[in-house]
Amino acid sequence: MTQLPDSTLSRLFDPQGIAIVGASATPGKIGAMPVTLLRQHGYEGRIVPVNPRADTIQGLAALPSLDALDGNIDLAILAVPAAHAAQALERARPGQVGAAVVFTSGFSETGASGAAQQERLCAVARERGIRLLGPNCLGFMNVRRKVYATFSPAPANGIVPPGGIGMVSQSGAFGAYAYSMARERGLGLSHWISTGNEADIDVADCIEWLAHDADTRVIMAYMEGCRDGNKLRRALAAARAAGKAVVVTKIGRTQAGAQAAASHTAALAGDDAVYDALFRQYGALRARSIEDFFNLGYALDTWKRPPAGKRLGIFTISGGVGALMADEAQDAGLALPEPAAPAQARLLERVPFASGRNPVDVTGQAVSEPGLLLTTADDVLADGGYDALAVFLAAAGSSEALWPTFEAFAREMQARHPGVPLAISALFPPARRRELERLGCLVFPDPSAAIRTIGTVASLADRADMDASAIAPSASPDGAPPLLDAYNEVQAMALLRHAGLPATPCTLAADAGAAVRAATALGCPVALKVVSPDIVHKSDVGGVKLNVAGEDALRRAHADIMDAVRRRCPQARIDGVLVAPMAPKGVECIAGVHCDPVFGPVVMFGLGGVFVEVLKDVSFRLAPFGRDEALAMIREIKGYALLQGARGAPPCDIGALADALAALSRFAHARRADFSSVEINPLLALPDGQGALALDAVVIRSGA
Amino acid sequence: MTQLPDSTLSRLFDPQGIAIVGASATPGKIGAMPVTLLRQHGYEGRIVPVNPRADTIQGLAALPSLDALDGNIDLAILAVPAAHAAQALERARPGQVGAAVVFTSGFSETGASGAAQQERLCAVARERGIRLLGPNCLGFMNVRRKVYATFSPAPANGIVPPGGIGMVSQSGAFGAYAYSMARERGLGLSHWISTGNEADIDVADCIEWLAHDADTRVIMAYMEGCRDGNKLRRALAAARAAGKAVVVTKIGRTQAGAQAAASHTAALAGDDAVYDALFRQYGALRARSIEDFFNLGYALDTWKRPPAGKRLGIFTISGGVGALMADEAQDAGLALPEPAAPAQARLLERVPFASGRNPVDVTGQAVSEPGLLLTTADDVLADGGYDALAVFLAAAGSSEALWPTFEAFAREMQARHPGVPLAISALFPPARRRELERLGCLVFPDPSAAIRTIGTVASLADRADMDASAIAPSASPDGAPPLLDAYNEVQAMALLRHAGLPATPCTLAADAGAAVRAATALGCPVALKVVSPDIVHKSDVGGVKLNVAGEDALRRAHADIMDAVRRRCPQARIDGVLVAPMAPKGVECIAGVHCDPVFGPVVMFGLGGVFVEVLKDVSFRLAPFGRDEALAMIREIKGYALLQGARGAPPCDIGALADALAALSRFAHARRADFSSVEINPLLALPDGQGALALDAVVIRSGA
Repeated sequence: MTQLPDSTLSRLFDPQGIAIVGASATPGKIGAMPVTLLRQHGYEGRIVPVNPRADTIQGLAALPSLDALDGNIDLAILAVPAAHAAQALERARPGQVGAAVVFTSGFSETGASGAAQQERLCAVARERGIRLLGPNCLGFMNVRRKVYATFSPAPANGIVPPGGIGMVSQSGAFGAYAYSMARERGLGLSHWISTGNEADIDVADCIEWLAHDADTRVIMAYMEGCRDGNKLRRALAAARAAGKAVVVTKIGRTQAGAQAAASHTAALAGDDAVYDALFRQYGALRARSIEDFFNLGYALDTWKRPPAGKRLGIFTISGGVGALMADEAQDAGLALPEPAAPAQARLLERVPFASGRNPVDVTGQAVSEPGLLLTTADDVLADGGYDALAVFLAAAGSSEALWPTFEAFAREMQARHPGVPLAISALFPPARRRELERLGCLVFPDPSAAIRTIGTVASLADRADMDASAIAPSASPDGAPPLLDAYNEVQAMALLRHAGLPATPCTLAADAGAAVRAATALGCPVALKVVSPDIVHKSDVGGVKLNVAGEDALRRAHADIMDAVRRRCPQARIDGVLVAPMAPKGVECIAGVHCDPVFGPVVMFGLGGVFVEVLKDVSFRLAPFGRDEALAMIREIKGYALLQGARGAPPCDIGALADALAALSRFAHARRADFSSVEINPLLALPDGQGALALDAVVIRSGA
Repeated sequence: MTQLPDSTLSRLFDPQGIAIVGASATPGKIGAMPVTLLRQHGYEGRIVPVNPRADTIQGLAALPSLDALDGNIDLAILAVPAAHAAQALERARPGQVGAAVVFTSGFSETGASGAAQQERLCAVARERGIRLLGPNCLGFMNVRRKVYATFSPAPANGIVPPGGIGMVSQSGAFGAYAYSMARERGLGLSHWISTGNEADIDVADCIEWLAHDADTRVIMAYMEGCRDGNKLRRALAAARAAGKAVVVTKIGRTQAGAQAAASHTAALAGDDAVYDALFRQYGALRARSIEDFFNLGYALDTWKRPPAGKRLGIFTISGGVGALMADEAQDAGLALPEPAAPAQARLLERVPFASGRNPVDVTGQAVSEPGLLLTTADDVLADGGYDALAVFLAAAGSSEALWPTFEAFAREMQARHPGVPLAISALFPPARRRELERLGCLVFPDPSAAIRTIGTVASLADRADMDASAIAPSASPDGAPPLLDAYNEVQAMALLRHAGLPATPCTLAADAGAAVRAATALGCPVALKVVSPDIVHKSDVGGVKLNVAGEDALRRAHADIMDAVRRRCPQARIDGVLVAPMAPKGVECIAGVHCDPVFGPVVMFGLGGVFVEVLKDVSFRLAPFGRDEALAMIREIKGYALLQGARGAPPCDIGALADALAALSRFAHARRADFSSVEINPLLALPDGQGALALDAVVIRSGA
């Protein structure tokens, strides 16, 4: 997790020299733009135009091909037609070129022959040890080093200043728009990267590299899909280890979006619920719109540190808008604790019509009494009861006369309460807004957007608590039941029991005598069920007897089952009869594992019945995970109240449920080569203190 | 519904002359600002400063008090301290002053003595026939007539041009912010009104007046609560009848927000779910943030007419962002039908790497081929399959070189496809943006905001289908069962049956013989239940027998019930034993009516079991309503799939369910004076074609 950045990527993203293959003198040509931009913005490394049909390009001496270069060069930009790209790169001597950015389209995105072309290009690059960005990409920019290895028209309309945001986008159009948006919103970038077809370097590589890049504080990524799940997990873990927040937009949240994404990316984008689980699990903040994407990047970049928790103070000069903000805060999962009583009393003494509760309404008095806002904030924040402060100034924010008051407020807040990040909602003129941002204060025209952003950013605090080491070492297969080709339910339960799951004790009885012995050993009324790989609906064929006690009754029940099954399913192979204690009362849940083609085993949790079947009320996590993650997964369910003891029932043993899910995740991860799916249905959540209990399970071998 | 506007409000909002009581020469004083603004912006009526301590104010001759006025005046602005307001108004002769705007605070918002002061002010106004806006308000502006009857500082920072939006806000701070926001976003206003304490005129009065105002096309309202539900309903109905959309922000959506609102408005804001029902029912679009508020107002004002339906075409030059927009479209309830095959083929012929499906990705080719966008749109829209078009231009929108292409596109779209309103997402320079807006085209930097806005505005199309006349005349009490002090379940069911609800036939049997006769008449196995006002949990005391058939069994069951109940509840009054057919299979629903203190009877619908109890999955409508509204109400439920036939069950008779709810709403409305609540639980939804069936009901008399 803490490995050093890939040094070949450093040659790419921080090159000492750049050759532009297909360099052009014609303004607007894709071979002309990087030369123009590099010179215009003062790139300090070597710039070598490569073009066999010109001696100089834009005043620089040009070479006919890469092999004419004396010595090595970190980066080659390929701005030649797809048909010539591999050939142009072939001219490089092995080791001579560190990396190549391939602008041109006409590769895998166009179909089979383009894909072959792309494969050939990759092979040439691999042979020569060249890392490849693209093809079919807009290139990249290293803003601080003035590396404009791009033909995006976006910088031509004005460049973005250097800053702490590293931005990477699979889509060029999204990337170019995001670059323009960053300029519009006054954000600073460290790097801007578009990955295009990702023949070699993908979004995950870039995230990992940015995680180690000293200029980058926040990573903003746009992705359409992922081919190497482990690499993406490693990249997100690296960012988390480096304390850098990742904001991600991934398309395909809905069926309509996934369909559009699939038709666009050719490769299926994968199950979106799994991406969602991944992002939650690794503390990446998922943005659902470009606006959210920027609000989050903006907040993480502007604030020195995100809120340490979810306790929000709201200060307004309008009670009504305060309530509007409180609405949004509740939706965003933020708490609005009341200020201490003495602080409330002091405010009311000063402004009798104010409201001292949270939202704190200092009223329009804040306009006529310049010190009121700060005094109140000092007083309310003195107890340390807040993790962030959101202030609404209404139309007063536009007043030049009041600017010194607001500027002093933001400055003093930063000095006196550095642990309470501040967001102000008002319509400041752009220059004023920038001043406040330089003081580390967020500014939002829309107070609801301020609250929503704080809510999402504050969720990082939960994540910080989740120690990755809480994931116990994976269950080892040592001593596990022998690996079988297929598992009946008794074998499946034994497997899960060995993996640390609370599986109800059950025995496979070969005959009536064995059934009696098993029931006697359990010492309670039992359930008997026929076990057969050929019978799915056991009750329907008379294969189930419940609540059986006493030797005679057991023998009779056993005989009844065998008779009924032999009569109604004469062809069925019968393994025996399962003997298990009758289930105690509890809330029926479902837990499962399926194998995602990109991310491997994924654990699912839900409540039984209509919750899963009608409401699709389930949550997912990538295996393995620890207890805290399992708890988060359980709390995510819409029907969570049912586990807390709704309808007069006692609260369930949620901790035991979490332990069971974590154990399932460790099993799924450790045995991912052996098993492709597990379904535990029902997994019974018993009353608090009594644990959880798997009553039945289906386990499917890999390749089965 | 089609009554004429209140002419006394016309004197207020369109005054021919204005007296400013407490007029001042000191800049910034609340008595100075209206005089300054009226003169500065060229108000053409008479302006009369009133101040006993000055002969002239800002160069105008001042009068000592209102009675010194020769003749009448439409409007008096009161900018004097609360203690002097009533006194100042008292000086007016009856009939002399049409209306008064009272700026000053210190009235009911400050407590009991302020409330008394306000009552006195109202009495004075009533005696003299003066309509009152405020007190404790920022006043109003009639933008076209240059009436600036306000002391809001917002117009001092720049005024908003005349336009089609009428804006009314209970909160002054929200109103001032919204005014500034309108200026920032380039929107035009007809009127801007702040209602403050609403001693006389409230938001509903203003909505109704704006509904009749020729200058207003769209109404934007902010409210915190409402004291007269009927007036608000009438106002929203008037706006709807006038074809004017209403966008409303009401605080208190959540518990935290409602709490804050209550502490702010002193009076409880009321049940938010009822407001939500009201807005849905009357086709008012509820905005949850200031940004949504403006996006909706902007769309309704800029588009000549809203989309006629929910079929959206998405055009992009980026497949990825197209998918992002498709995600948002699905969330917004929009459909994305595919273009006709020939149109798709023609696009692919022209641009092989394009995507002809919806989202239509014309690719970056749109940049190099100026006509591509329009040709494709012409081709795709020719079949009339779309109600709106959303276009994403990525960073190309910022390009001055491409401006003529985009301008021509917007212009031609308007000319050739006037029935397909257009929204473009791109970062245009402000002046370019305004040009597109003048062409009737919406512009959004965030493509998701564009889609979200289209989705909400398109929901007006559903509303347009809902003919208010679909509400059949209210059930008359003629021939209804006699009005009782209290209703047992048999009486309750009879009442509902008479009201047109499908209530299961049930009889109250006084003795075993009567029970046998009733069961014989039904001709099927029956359920027997003891009926007693003193027994709630009938099964627990042995008061229920199910599936009883045959005279002997009936007599035995009757005796068993009576014995058990007499033994276990010796004090209980017993009305008899209910005899009803056994219930058929169906999905258990719940329907109810409760009486909202502001809006009267409100009908609730939900699915039984965990849906209501754990998930609070219910929908509401104000009574009365018709079948279409009832259908909308049923479809709103999250568990709706269960009624459509989830889990292998047959689909339910949703039409019959809707008829039952509509009948319940008519009953609740017609008998609102007699009954305070009804609960039908369960209301069984039977398989399609078999109707619905109320199995049990509780009816509570008003005042009981």
